[in-house]
Order: sequence, then structure tokens, then C-alpha cells
Amino acid sequence: MIFSVHVEVRLRPGIADPQGSTIERALPSLGFDGVTGVRVGKSIRFTVEGADEASARAEVEDMCRRFLTNPVIEDAVVELTAAEAAGASS
Amino acid sequence: MIFSVHVEVRLRPGIADPQGSTIERALPSLGFDGVTGVRVGKSIRFTVEGADEASARAEVEDMCRRFLTNPVIEDAVVELTAAEAAGASS
Repeated sequence: MIFSVHVEVRLRPGIADPQGSTIERALPSLGFDGVTGVRVGKSIRFTVEGADEASARAEVEDMCRRFLTNPVIEDAVVELTAAEAAGASS
Repeated sequence: MIFSVHVEVRLRPGIADPQGSTIERALPSLGFDGVTGVRVGKSIRFTVEGADEASARAEVEDMCRRFLTNPVIEDAVVELTAAEAAGASS
């Protein structure tokens, strides 16, 4: 089975986010008021093959821990959806 | 009203993604097979004040066009949710 995966990588709460702070500071002078708490993360999308959803999710979470994120400062949120009509690969 | 906003910034289809390609090439040697189509984007979260959802969304989409994304090579997907219990700010 083939799954579409979306991994959102966020900085953990409390970890400084200089990129987000810079955006937040710049906004009022560009005419946008009322924006607070800007946090910038990564969004990684890919497809993965697995026997079932549980094993695909386990593989993706292992990938997150090992090299898509830095678990000391980042959290990952994994979304998996079955991608039908993706078969016929042989 | 206060809204929680999530902006996902993705490279447009067809635009080369060297970061995603590098991840994809590295995966098999790290023991992860069957992963294809890796695309890396940005995920920006913040809160915004607006009179109603339509005006808040219009402001966020204007921000996206003007400086959160490069519209030549990137698409933005905006998700807005009303953040209740965020009042009492004065």
C-alpha cells in the first residue's frame, strides 16, 4: 500500500524562534497589525510504501526521530493518508 | 476576534526541490526504502486579530502574497480557526 505523508516539524514550546520573531517585528511596519506568536516550522510531504498503515506510520516516526527533526528542540506531527490509485507499480 | 492561523508554503509542482531530492537520495542508505516524491516546504503558525473570519483571511492572504511566500515558485495554503478563550487582553 502507498501512503501520502505530511510531516509538520515545529519548534518545541519555549524554544526561541528568531525567524518567527523577525517576521513578527517586521509586520507592523509593513501595514499588518494584530499578528502575534509567529512560529516557523518545516512541512515535509512524501509518499511511502508499507504493508499497512501501522507499519508505514512506525517507519515515518522512526525517520522523524532519526533525521527529519532534531528531537531536542523540535516536535513532529505525522499525518498519513492512504493514497489509492497509486498501485500498478509493476 | 482572534484567529489561529496555519500557513503551509509549498513549492509549486514542477519547481525543483534540491532539499527534498537530497533527503530522498539519502534515505535508502539509512535503511528507509519506498519513500518517493519528497517535497520540503515551510509551515508558519501565528495568531491574528480581525473583525471577522473573512477580513482576517483577506489580511493573511495579502501577507502571504506580499512577503511570506515567493508567488513565482511557491503556493500557500491558509487554514484559519477561531481561537476562543483568547480574550481578556486588557
